[in-house]
Amino acid sequence: MAGVVENRQVVLKEYIDGIPKESDMEMKSEKVALKAPKGSGAFLVKNLYLSCDPYMRGRMRNFHASYIPPFVPGQPIEGFGVAKVVDSDNPDFKPGDYISGLTGWEDYTLIYNNTSLSQLRKIQPDDCIPLSYHVGLLGMPGFTAYVGLYEICSPKKGEYVFVSAASGAVGQLVGQLAKLHGCYVVGSSGSSQKVDLLKNHFGFDDAFNYKEEADLDAALKRYFPQGIDVYFDNVGGDMLDAALLNMRVHGQIAVCGMVSLHSFSDPKGIHNLHSLIPKRIKMQGFLQSDYLNKFPEFLEHVSERYKQQNIVYIEDMNEGLETAPAAFVGLFSGRNIGKQVICVARD
Amino acid sequence: MAGVVENRQVVLKEYIDGIPKESDMEMKSEKVALKAPKGSGAFLVKNLYLSCDPYMRGRMRNFHASYIPPFVPGQPIEGFGVAKVVDSDNPDFKPGDYISGLTGWEDYTLIYNNTSLSQLRKIQPDDCIPLSYHVGLLGMPGFTAYVGLYEICSPKKGEYVFVSAASGAVGQLVGQLAKLHGCYVVGSSGSSQKVDLLKNHFGFDDAFNYKEEADLDAALKRYFPQGIDVYFDNVGGDMLDAALLNMRVHGQIAVCGMVSLHSFSDPKGIHNLHSLIPKRIKMQGFLQSDYLNKFPEFLEHVSERYKQQNIVYIEDMNEGLETAPAAFVGLFSGRNIGKQVICVARD
Repeated sequence: MAGVVENRQVVLKEYIDGIPKESDMEMKSEKVALKAPKGSGAFLVKNLYLSCDPYMRGRMRNFHASYIPPFVPGQPIEGFGVAKVVDSDNPDFKPGDYISGLTGWEDYTLIYNNTSLSQLRKIQPDDCIPLSYHVGLLGMPGFTAYVGLYEICSPKKGEYVFVSAASGAVGQLVGQLAKLHGCYVVGSSGSSQKVDLLKNHFGFDDAFNYKEEADLDAALKRYFPQGIDVYFDNVGGDMLDAALLNMRVHGQIAVCGMVSLHSFSDPKGIHNLHSLIPKRIKMQGFLQSDYLNKFPEFLEHVSERYKQQNIVYIEDMNEGLETAPAAFVGLFSGRNIGKQVICVARD
Repeated sequence: MAGVVENRQVVLKEYIDGIPKESDMEMKSEKVALKAPKGSGAFLVKNLYLSCDPYMRGRMRNFHASYIPPFVPGQPIEGFGVAKVVDSDNPDFKPGDYISGLTGWEDYTLIYNNTSLSQLRKIQPDDCIPLSYHVGLLGMPGFTAYVGLYEICSPKKGEYVFVSAASGAVGQLVGQLAKLHGCYVVGSSGSSQKVDLLKNHFGFDDAFNYKEEADLDAALKRYFPQGIDVYFDNVGGDMLDAALLNMRVHGQIAVCGMVSLHSFSDPKGIHNLHSLIPKRIKMQGFLQSDYLNKFPEFLEHVSERYKQQNIVYIEDMNEGLETAPAAFVGLFSGRNIGKQVICVARD
């Protein structure tokens, strides 16, 4: 039959609780017709770029009470991606359109666009902006940086901002936005190469390798002798504990991610929450998806600054769908340098 | 010499880190002239009621970087009290005036009123309101309840409110204000007598004795099958950990106190902060002293409702300055029933 092709898929084998391993996923393959069924309202896309994001780990748990359901074992992993419409039964998406949003870890995905969680939108190709940036700088991670910095915190010019996992998909933009805002910005990351990027490529005021610091409290006291006004927390754990001791009065903590979490069922304790009271600290968890009405404003703000070369962005691009499990797992040991993307196909 | 009297004092012996013990304090006595020195701007008061508040423990540490300095070992403990002016070199305070604010744990105190932290104000005696309420319902603890509920959280009618240490100086008012606001309110406390008070005297919708619950998470799931919108946290520790698992989306936690904290230098861990992100929880520490511009509004709001018998208040009144150390220490085991006050003298 014409238009039937092989569709490789990365599937979750079974639910997990701890840190993801490559063996938690496997490759499968099945035939797929390059057709969107009539009357389905769906459209079929060819996936180009897939995003590896730490939050996806939460969907690998057998936990159904969260804002988003868990993955279905045996089915392709879901994640944000950039894709090209191949066939469509949806008048809003036409063959040839580029889209970003929730898709599958596979070559081709039939998308029903039936939930706001999927954050589907058409991309206007732009010669100045790589398509893949729509899962990074201009996608969910970039918007997370924007929302966390401006909606959850309210940094003032001259304030002291600390970002953990600072060279990651979210952190690199947090730091650059805070710098453009007139803040003093220090980032932490896990290698000397990343520290170098933070200082010399992303323009952070300073940066350090947390793996070289035996005492994180002492490290933060060295980098922030005046204390921290805004902590953009991507990691949780020991760094959060140390930051709590170094916050300034009325400090703000945007709780964005806890990539250091070893286990949901037996999480490590945070010991310094008593600091919240005398320092009147606000600590707030957030999801970018609550602020989608701000997305157009974000897109314009960041695209413009990117084109003016006031913002840079680094991707860690893996080639081939089959590299996805290792790339995803690498997020939790910090193997990636910059935003982790999988290139499944180039247009 | 005329006007020289014995002045008994409760002094801190030395700095501590763990839970206060009676032996950390001792009684002393010295002579005092019942005079405010000319040119000092000070006034001399006779202390009537002294307040035992858990926050005072923080001033027993050798830690100088907080919002308020530590106590001075060998000097009388400082705390909120109600007192009567005996002699004055300050035109704003005249002999015979009743005041509330920061005073000493002693019979007589010379007050310099040189810091906003002392929260000194004149009290208009009112036949309908016991003087001692100015260190409880109408003083710092009451104002803490008001600020935490209305300024830190923003409860809506019909929302689910949980209060820990609910029969304490702060908790009893939090619950009653939340009820008047149209919320569903459950409190936790540490004895069946207190649970009875919460349900039958303070009008909480429900209450439980945390000491009888082997699994606090399960207890909260039983009392809040729909989850918690607002948690007014007076205790920290295991109850905070369990509450984190039971918050609703966009829940708010006012972090008011951590009376369960066993040690500042080796605090127990909180394990469920990862809940902050998917549930978008805001957790905020606060001090009532940041909101003093709201004090007149609070005083009017609560006095009025008290006089209309829409609010009740329970004090645990100890007689005699010498009972202060045991009464203070009792706060940390929940020995007190209601607001702990020491009566030093009755007018």
